[in-house]
Amino acid sequence: MYVDHVKNIKGTSLTAPGILNATKQTLLGPAQGWQGWVMRLFTLAANGHTPRHSHPWPHINYIVSGKGTLFLNGTEHAVEAGSVAYVPGDAEHQFKNAGSEDFSFICIVPEEGDV
Amino acid sequence: MYVDHVKNIKGTSLTAPGILNATKQTLLGPAQGWQGWVMRLFTLAANGHTPRHSHPWPHINYIVSGKGTLFLNGTEHAVEAGSVAYVPGDAEHQFKNAGSEDFSFICIVPEEGDV
Repeated sequence: MYVDHVKNIKGTSLTAPGILNATKQTLLGPAQGWQGWVMRLFTLAANGHTPRHSHPWPHINYIVSGKGTLFLNGTEHAVEAGSVAYVPGDAEHQFKNAGSEDFSFICIVPEEGDV
Repeated sequence: MYVDHVKNIKGTSLTAPGILNATKQTLLGPAQGWQGWVMRLFTLAANGHTPRHSHPWPHINYIVSGKGTLFLNGTEHAVEAGSVAYVPGDAEHQFKNAGSEDFSFICIVPEEGDV
């Protein structure tokens, strides 16, 4: 069993090509009991974005706060707190903050996708 | 691919022994592409609670809004927006709203647990 809060979970600033103003927190995965999957929380500060890329594994997303866009296979979707998305494996995708406040979202991936 | 928002997803009021003031929305599962798992959103209105029970499958939880408690294997944990929990299979557990506003949380289960 495991009960914690995001305020206690260390964040890592991400620095890689195509990523800006992004922080990652690993909320729950195999170490806490969920075999095969990892729930992460990404926070994009103003102007932040993830890279526009694709990979073989899917994303399961739930938007926790803020406003942003999800580019998915050629279409830009407006998303905000309460939005939910399934990004299939090999689909080109990118999240961007579209507001002045933090934009944060849950991103669940199979264990092999938590790189 | 799938992009939607909780405001567009039909809620079902739950009526069963031990459940009070609870609504369920199914956000994302096999029908949207996530094989083997289902992400649901439960909303407990004031005084609401889920049953105190156990079952063979685990819960993966993220608290979206409000304040509540998670009873888990004999201990009551205060939880609120931003809390995260892993409820192992066969662990006795119960969520209660501990505030005057809606208490809502994501609850992910293996497909066989979405009954």
